[in-house]
Amino acid sequence: MQKGNTRISMAVIRRLPKYRRYLSELLDKDIHRISSKELSKIIGFTASQIRQDLNNFGGFGQQGYGYNVEELHSAIGKILGLDHSYNTVIVGAGNIGQAIANYTNFEKAGFKPTAMFEINPKLIGLKIRDIEIMDADLLGTYIKEKNINIGIICTSKEKAQDVANVMVESGIQGIWNFAPTDLQVPEHVVLETVHLSESLYTLSYLLKHKREEED
Amino acid sequence: MQKGNTRISMAVIRRLPKYRRYLSELLDKDIHRISSKELSKIIGFTASQIRQDLNNFGGFGQQGYGYNVEELHSAIGKILGLDHSYNTVIVGAGNIGQAIANYTNFEKAGFKPTAMFEINPKLIGLKIRDIEIMDADLLGTYIKEKNINIGIICTSKEKAQDVANVMVESGIQGIWNFAPTDLQVPEHVVLETVHLSESLYTLSYLLKHKREEED
Repeated sequence: MQKGNTRISMAVIRRLPKYRRYLSELLDKDIHRISSKELSKIIGFTASQIRQDLNNFGGFGQQGYGYNVEELHSAIGKILGLDHSYNTVIVGAGNIGQAIANYTNFEKAGFKPTAMFEINPKLIGLKIRDIEIMDADLLGTYIKEKNINIGIICTSKEKAQDVANVMVESGIQGIWNFAPTDLQVPEHVVLETVHLSESLYTLSYLLKHKREEED
Repeated sequence: MQKGNTRISMAVIRRLPKYRRYLSELLDKDIHRISSKELSKIIGFTASQIRQDLNNFGGFGQQGYGYNVEELHSAIGKILGLDHSYNTVIVGAGNIGQAIANYTNFEKAGFKPTAMFEINPKLIGLKIRDIEIMDADLLGTYIKEKNINIGIICTSKEKAQDVANVMVESGIQGIWNFAPTDLQVPEHVVLETVHLSESLYTLSYLLKHKREEED
């Protein structure tokens, strides 16, 4: 972390996509103005929490008038960097890799997968939608030449660190990791890991302990 | 939340799968004893945090001897409820649903998908591995008759709440939700949601703000 900037806590940052999602849903329902109290009711945070969170970014809304939903939605999108588009590559064309490649909503949000990479020769040369599956040996060169911003790792945990190393050496800015392992990357690279099994095992814990309470 | 039980904080619960994952990796490397200091180094929590976390469950390890890796791994597995097996169903045979159905590691951990459900007639009757894709209209009856514990929702956000309602009415105990929406379920049902886009947008935020710092 660097000095000279106001640091926003990760807890606040992780709430921003949720605000944006609820605001999208309001726009879908043609609701264009909302009080922090009403927003609080649907999103489940207190009104004071919402005001505090948004004050981190200069504050929005007018006393007594509430928030302009469209403005707030667009402002949070900008804060999240969703007014940019990013070139991404997916490494690993297995189940999760294919699901991400097929999921067009990420592309609509500005995260365009330009290629996939695989070590399995049976998959190399195939396409998922218009995304070509290339030989994993070409990953480093491709990242450099095509100015790729984000690498999405969907390999086994055994291969994931090697893939991350190639990405880092080739100048990647961010890694979105689905391999069930904690990767080591230098501080200038942003790493975000989705641990699906941790989520499932948390569910399992809560199920078990609910059952014990009921016994 | 109910009375009469020691409440473990969600933060501790969410760390348990991570402990178990690191302990698995140690076993893979044939390491059978580890001090809290060494464990701290590889897992990235302080030694005192580790001792505190594990003390919630009665404590493990002996002063000066460290932890028996196998015992601790198995104890955490039990705490997480991974010594049970669970019958699961997957609703939605799109990208994520198919990826979950194909991902055999969850099945090995005791979460066995016994059927998938779809509204798309082109998919009904097909199989993913040995898991049949059935008509979504049969979901409620199936959950009741087959004693299904966990429902995995991989539908669009528009359909997800209706699916959750059917699951709840049919006696489901837990829901693992991949639809990008916050579902409403009664308190006796455990809900765990994986918000993939929130993870990606957090990555995007961190990328954008890192870039600004560097400018």
